[in-house]
Amino acid sequence: MTLRRAQGCFISLEGGEGVGKSTQAGRLTDALRARGLDVLLTREPGGSPGAEAIRQLLLEGAGDRWTPGAEALLFAAARADHVTKTIEPALEAGRWVLCDRFLDSSRAYQGVAGEVGDAAIQNLHQIGSDGALPDRTLVLMLSDEDAAARAHARDEGCPDRIGGRDAKFHAAVAQAFRDFARDDPARIRLIDASGDEEAVTERLLAALSDLLS
Amino acid sequence: MTLRRAQGCFISLEGGEGVGKSTQAGRLTDALRARGLDVLLTREPGGSPGAEAIRQLLLEGAGDRWTPGAEALLFAAARADHVTKTIEPALEAGRWVLCDRFLDSSRAYQGVAGEVGDAAIQNLHQIGSDGALPDRTLVLMLSDEDAAARAHARDEGCPDRIGGRDAKFHAAVAQAFRDFARDDPARIRLIDASGDEEAVTERLLAALSDLLS
Ligand SMILES: Nc1ncnc2c1ncn2[C@@H]1O[C@H](COP(=O)(O)OP(=O)(O)OP(=O)(O)O)[C@@H](O)[C@H]1O
Ligand SMILES: Nc1ncnc2c1ncn2[C@@H]1O[C@H](COP(=O)(O)OP(=O)(O)OP(=O)(O)O)[C@@H](O)[C@H]1O
Ligand SMILES: [Mg+2]
Ligand SMILES: [Mg+2]
Repeated sequence: MTLRRAQGCFISLEGGEGVGKSTQAGRLTDALRARGLDVLLTREPGGSPGAEAIRQLLLEGAGDRWTPGAEALLFAAARADHVTKTIEPALEAGRWVLCDRFLDSSRAYQGVAGEVGDAAIQNLHQIGSDGALPDRTLVLMLSDEDAAARAHARDEGCPDRIGGRDAKFHAAVAQAFRDFARDDPARIRLIDASGDEEAVTERLLAALSDLLS
Repeated sequence: MTLRRAQGCFISLEGGEGVGKSTQAGRLTDALRARGLDVLLTREPGGSPGAEAIRQLLLEGAGDRWTPGAEALLFAAARADHVTKTIEPALEAGRWVLCDRFLDSSRAYQGVAGEVGDAAIQNLHQIGSDGALPDRTLVLMLSDEDAAARAHARDEGCPDRIGGRDAKFHAAVAQAFRDFARDDPARIRLIDASGDEEAVTERLLAALSDLLS
């Protein structure tokens, strides 16, 4: 479905671990606000009280606490709550919504690189969130070495349940994002995340220029 | 799928509120054990540590805490955990498993009487639990007045989030169970739940006679 809205746009920021999504989500929020836009910055999993409660269940505990199917169902439940309670009301009020990870992370991590399959993930999103999609999805792409260096510098080697996975898995995630962008170029754009923060923010703004004009 | 098992059977007890499911689950467990069977009694939502954590999210809070889609996703996630962590291991060990509510409650409550649809509920069960079904499902059927009287006597008028619904909804649930039994008579049997507890237990055992011989 297309989300009802007054005039705002729904933008998601995607990419592998440590590529700078959260850094750029903050910078992009500032840049859009400097243009006079009313921006809600939110993130997944989480972004509404119910979704934050589910986030706790997802991030706590051992790596095998949940089967892949159960994990996908929990992410979809959190997303359904986030869409209904936070994203839709903001868009209906005419605000812009910037979301740090959204559906395409589930598609890449649990769907393609995991065991669930992309069709099942999209199915769950249809049931939970009526298939709601962002107007634009910006995928930050970084070489594996650069991404690992940034994530390591930040976490000091303490990955959470979702982050603690191997190089092959992360390569599959990166390839999944490339495939998504190829299959839906109107919505999904790959953005070079190398270089300094300001240069990356400029690239993101350029990829939103049609929505900003 | 058919669940792998050594020799045990997987039985679910279903029906509307207050029809005597939990009472009969206990009595049936005793009756099967008296026949020398190793029986695991479990219940939904819950039945495994992960599923019990999700159960808390489902039963707490206001009636509109979750959208129908989010609620269906949470039930399916809890069921996936329950099947993988509790039901399958017991069946593989040759035990009988008796479950107080299972998939057909989600089909009746969220699927048919709610807004989600039976196809979506079955879809979620396929993704989360590989479509695992009981060998036999016993649906306790009681007139609305008798069911309300039993539930009221027990709860003293304090229904939880799921229980606090109107007569029309409960009639739709009862009709859904009748339709399920008509569509899958090999698995699903309607059992008259009126009369004293012992008489009901005898009817349940009669509906398992082929599995017990
Ligand atoms: N352009 C950049 N150049 C160098 N370091 C950066 C740049 N952008 C972000 N970083 C640093 O890299 C680390 C990871 O950034 P950030 O947390 O924004 O990534 P992320 O994609 O949100 O990670 P995660 O997937 O774990 O949430 C942080 O320490 C951040 O300060
Ligand atoms: N055959 C019976 N005759 C009279 N009362 C009964 C009978 N079976 C159960 N009860 C009583 O009815 C009430 C509801 O029974 P029970 O809790 O077993 O129902 P339930 O189907 O598990 O309800 P719920 O859907 O709320 O879990 C209890 O107070 C119980 O003692
Ligand atoms: Mg981040
Ligand atoms: Mg009960």
